Amino acid sequence: MRMRNKPWAAERLADYPQYAVPAPEEVKGNWAQKFGNENPLHIEVGTGKGRFVTEMARANPDVNYIGVELSESIIVTALDRVIEAELPNVKLLNSNAEDLAAIFEKGEVQRVYLNFSDPWPKNRHEKRRLTNKKFIDLYKTVLPDKGEIHFKTDNQGLFEFSLQSFWEYGLKLTFLSLDLHNSDFEGNIMTEYEEKFSKKGQRIYRCEVQYQ
Amino acid sequence: MRMRNKPWAAERLADYPQYAVPAPEEVKGNWAQKFGNENPLHIEVGTGKGRFVTEMARANPDVNYIGVELSESIIVTALDRVIEAELPNVKLLNSNAEDLAAIFEKGEVQRVYLNFSDPWPKNRHEKRRLTNKKFIDLYKTVLPDKGEIHFKTDNQGLFEFSLQSFWEYGLKLTFLSLDLHNSDFEGNIMTEYEEKFSKKGQRIYRCEVQYQ
Repeated sequence: MRMRNKPWAAERLADYPQYAVPAPEEVKGNWAQKFGNENPLHIEVGTGKGRFVTEMARANPDVNYIGVELSESIIVTALDRVIEAELPNVKLLNSNAEDLAAIFEKGEVQRVYLNFSDPWPKNRHEKRRLTNKKFIDLYKTVLPDKGEIHFKTDNQGLFEFSLQSFWEYGLKLTFLSLDLHNSDFEGNIMTEYEEKFSKKGQRIYRCEVQYQ
Repeated sequence: MRMRNKPWAAERLADYPQYAVPAPEEVKGNWAQKFGNENPLHIEVGTGKGRFVTEMARANPDVNYIGVELSESIIVTALDRVIEAELPNVKLLNSNAEDLAAIFEKGEVQRVYLNFSDPWPKNRHEKRRLTNKKFIDLYKTVLPDKGEIHFKTDNQGLFEFSLQSFWEYGLKLTFLSLDLHNSDFEGNIMTEYEEKFSKKGQRIYRCEVQYQ
């Protein structure tokens, strides 16, 4: 996604530490304390403009949500949404997905969401895809033994790659839809991207997998 | 598929024992001898009107093909095609898929094709789907250790079920396309059904899995 550079973004994030947590590595092991409760913690890796994580937080007050987004210029838009929502159970991290193990203890995160992750279609960029073996290994370091990854995308190539990757890793497949919006799956929260592209007739693929 | 009853079908099949092999149980263990060579044997379970198996045989003269079809009224149409093709490497069996273990020795079949199998969409009919655990167990009894199943369908529900079934069984996924006709897969031989429904814009799903 091409975004205009926003030189004021860092400052704005710094103004709202209750939502955009600074130095999240220092909170490692203490996220329950940070949220003020022992509710399960679900994170979205690549949270973009934050609609999914905010609406999930609104719909599920007994779950804590963290949206992780590398791009400062994008996460400030998510911050606006989170500020407006005034919810106690959603926070944002302007962090690199590769740093998850430095931010969360093993078992501190109950579920990882990946929504419309960058497909990185070129073979030589496979290592950047958030569903490759390296990342499945990484999520394992923050999830409990039977932790889950919930993944959706409109990108056929990325979905094929991801199914193969999950399958080869030995994860258990607990949900699969090759056309989410024409399935009986209930409670789907759409991302900004999902709404836009599904309106154009793009089908949405979704799966849930579980570590064994 | 609703077919008119064809009382003459049995007689016609009996007239061409070189193509529609009678009493195939008696050939068990001797299929190489029956074909007169040691070429690999690939079978299509539910061969319908036989276009796939015939065209595969034409395209791959170094592979032997057998189409297995339960319905006498349907397999006679396949027989017409096979008679016309005059190929030495394709035969038909008017048999029940459930009898495969009585017809082939372990390792006698190198590959199983399932094309546009009946989806049996009702939950209570899961046991009839050719990709359920019972059938994966059955194919294993005729395939060698790393034997393969190649499966394609336009039925989304059946494909979702089948992927889950193969995955859960512990097969290895070696090929996956969620839109075969818009993929770079080469050498696809279309079935009658496939041509008709893909022309209507129906997408075709395809996978290859391997026993480990």
